[in-house]
This record gives sequence, C-alpha cells and structure tokens, in this order.
Amino acid sequence: MEKNIKRFKCILAYDGTNFAGYQVQPGKRTVQLEVEQALNKIHKGESIRIAASGRTDAGVHARGQVIHFDSHLQIPGERWKKALNAMLPGDISILDVSEVDKDFHARFQSVRKEYRYRISLKSERDPFLRHYAYHYPFPLNLDAMKEAARYLMGTHDFTSFCSAKTEVVDKVRTVEEIIFTSTDDELVIQFIGNGFLYNMVRIMTGTLLEVGSGRKAPAEMERILAARDRVQAGKTAPGHGLYLWKVDYAITTNPGVTFS
Amino acid sequence: MEKNIKRFKCILAYDGTNFAGYQVQPGKRTVQLEVEQALNKIHKGESIRIAASGRTDAGVHARGQVIHFDSHLQIPGERWKKALNAMLPGDISILDVSEVDKDFHARFQSVRKEYRYRISLKSERDPFLRHYAYHYPFPLNLDAMKEAARYLMGTHDFTSFCSAKTEVVDKVRTVEEIIFTSTDDELVIQFIGNGFLYNMVRIMTGTLLEVGSGRKAPAEMERILAARDRVQAGKTAPGHGLYLWKVDYAITTNPGVTFS
Repeated sequence: MEKNIKRFKCILAYDGTNFAGYQVQPGKRTVQLEVEQALNKIHKGESIRIAASGRTDAGVHARGQVIHFDSHLQIPGERWKKALNAMLPGDISILDVSEVDKDFHARFQSVRKEYRYRISLKSERDPFLRHYAYHYPFPLNLDAMKEAARYLMGTHDFTSFCSAKTEVVDKVRTVEEIIFTSTDDELVIQFIGNGFLYNMVRIMTGTLLEVGSGRKAPAEMERILAARDRVQAGKTAPGHGLYLWKVDYAITTNPGVTFS
Repeated sequence: MEKNIKRFKCILAYDGTNFAGYQVQPGKRTVQLEVEQALNKIHKGESIRIAASGRTDAGVHARGQVIHFDSHLQIPGERWKKALNAMLPGDISILDVSEVDKDFHARFQSVRKEYRYRISLKSERDPFLRHYAYHYPFPLNLDAMKEAARYLMGTHDFTSFCSAKTEVVDKVRTVEEIIFTSTDDELVIQFIGNGFLYNMVRIMTGTLLEVGSGRKAPAEMERILAARDRVQAGKTAPGHGLYLWKVDYAITTNPGVTFS
C-alpha cells in the first residue's frame, strides 16, 4: 500500500473565535483536532496526522493557513475539498486541496508569510466586529506608526518582539514589508516576512499602537530591537484582531510538463 | 416626579446570532431583555420598559434598530449612551441616544424602514460569514431578479409574502425601492418601504432567488401578488442574512427654536 501514498497540500480558512488555537491540546476544541477528526472519518477510522505552516493562538483567525497530510485514498484534489468540507464544522472551510511532491512540508518549506492585524477605530464598539477586530477608539498618528515600522523592516534579532515563552533559539527574522491601509473607521496592518516568532505580530502591533498614541517615539524602535528584551516593547495586542492571511512556498505543486 | 419624566430615542446595533430574536420570551436570551435589564440596573432596580420600531426574528441582525424609553433620571443623551454600553453585552451596541418629544413612538411614528439581505456567492463557504450572510453558491440571473423586483415595488397587498402566522389584518404595504448591489462574491438586496409584514423581506428574497435561479419567471410576481396566498411565493430565506438597517421618522427630536 505504501507506494500509493500521496501527499496533499490544503489551504484552509477558520474563524478562531471558538477554538483554543490551532494545535491539539487535551480536552480543548482546536483546529487541528477538527481537521484530523474529519480525515479520520474519511479514512474509516485510520488515524491521519496533519502538519501546519505554524500554530495560531486562541481567537486568532486564518484566511490562508496551509497544512499537509498523506493518504492512500484515490481521491482527486477537488473531491478532497468537498469531502472535507462536508465533514468539517462551519467555522473551518477548506479552500483548496492539491497533490504535492512527497517532500513538500507545510512548515519547513514555507518561504514567506503574511499576517494582517485589523483595528476598528469606530468611536462606538461594533457588535459585528467584536471577535474580528481590536477596538481602539483613540486618535492615532499614522505617520509616526509608519516611521516606527520602517525600523522593524529588514533582518533583525526580534527577541524584544517575541513572547518569553518561546523555545526557539534563533530569533533573527526578516520582515519584508509592513503596509498600513486605513479608512476613517478601520486600520489594517499587513506584516510580510520570511517567518514570525511566537506573538511577534501581536507585539509589533501593540508597540506600533503605543507609537501611534504618542506613548513611544518612532526612533525608540531601534533601542527596543537592540535591547533584546521583551519588556522593552509594547503590550501584546489581542488575538482576535489577527489573521494568518497567506503562506507562500517556493514550489507548491508538482508542475508536471511545462511549456516555457 | 412625573413632571420630570423625559422620553429618549435610542439607535442600536446588534449581532442577532446569539439571540432568540428581539422580543422578550420566557427563558430566552433576547435583545429586549438585555436592554431592559441594563436600564433597570441604571435605574437601581426600577423596571423600565422599552418599545421598538418592530421585532426581529432569531438570528436577524440590526444596524439601526430604534427603541424609545422614559426615564426620570437627569442624564444627557451622550452620557446615556456610555452608561448603557457599559452595562450591555458585546453583541449589542448603543449608537445614539437623544431626547425626543413625549409623543414620539418608535413603532407608530416610523415612516420608512430599510432592510438589507446579504447573500454570499462564494463557491466555498466562508467561515467568517456563516452567521452574517446566506451562502448561495449557485449561478444567478441578476437581470431576471431586477425585473421581478419591479413587480414588487409600489403599493400592494402583500399577503402572499407574509408568514401565515401573522395577526396583522391590513396587509397592504408600499415598497418604495428594491436595490441590488453585487460583486463577484456577494449580492446585497436593499428593501426600502413604509413598513414590512412578518417575514416579508425574507419571503421576497427567497422568491427573488427562485427567479434568479430560473425556477420562476419574473412575470410570475404579478400572479403571486394577486393570489394573496403564502404558498404561491418562494421559500423564506434564512434569518442570518437579514439586517434591519435604518428606521426613519418624520420628526425625531424636539427641534427647539428654529430660524427658518
């Protein structure tokens, strides 16, 4: 049977509100648990494990999380999508399933990730955004935030912007871009980079908000980065404003025959 | 104390997902119950009743529901808003409170209402819309729907588009406008009129979707209206796609001294 095992890459979206995060934890409802249970049902009880591009915390959402799994079932990609969506609860949706090379790995082969942090600036809380954006009804100096963001872009040791709880040793990451998009009511900050440490986007967001509200000067970012000390940066912004938006891979699918 | 009683008009938004509708029902969590409980706390246990522009069903949302209440407390409008929002759960938000004439009535003095029905056309279900739009991943002929909508506009007996459960006798209403706004992913239908019968917007929407999918011809609307028979119209579209958007009044606040 081994020779018929195929690897599948799967893009999924989830509303993080009712999950205790992505990763399996005893007695908790998690995204990994729901997806593995759906796969187990499709495989008639056989246990299938999935691997993701990375974990997301409780309350954090995903528009483009990527996982992979192996299966000996002879099901084309489009049928996998239908089968999985039929088994999954309404707060998880499979957007795409494709067969990939056997050495594809959702975590180790990702080359770029995009997160978005959504901030509602409305003076009154919006009941429709209570789980989907951080409500921050205070004046913000966007120019100061953009100036501060320029210090964060590039390759740095991000120890100051990483939860002390992490077990990762190498804290050097490259932030390629931080893009601000705003209306009167809302600010979205896109973070694009080669990888992000535990809570890194939420700590960068919290620190940028302290700059925007005048509690920190943009140039302080340089000192905070150099300190390599979590307590120097700002607060961790809440999870419910954060979206794992997109994960890029150098090669995601077997390209087969190409004509170029 | 009677002479100091003032009447307040209050505009509120709510996410209908976790409510058994607007109106108080024994043992159920409703919008009316939550708002009256908040008012009772502010009045130190005194029972305050509210009156709304109309009920909304379980799962139905509101962006601009209007209620009124009477109070002897000497609190300006802006402070009322803060006090109520501090007492209310996150799925209800008070957008505005203003003092109005004693003869203002949220229900009897409304002259125009707008409802919006939101339809997600995405091929895959979107976990972020599962409570906020009706997922309808099928081709729709928008031109046919617009043609059918023209038969519904104007003053008609809407018995065919009213739940048989209603106790209302006069079923003549005027639909001023039905406006379609669409993107590749979404269709929003606005219904503006002087009043709507029980389930009327949801039945009109369900019937328009049957036209859009080719199961009914646009010209059938004329026959359906004339039949005055609920079974002639289409299915009732689900509640979670519906929003009470706006309620208009001829005069909403005491204009005080005017200079024109």
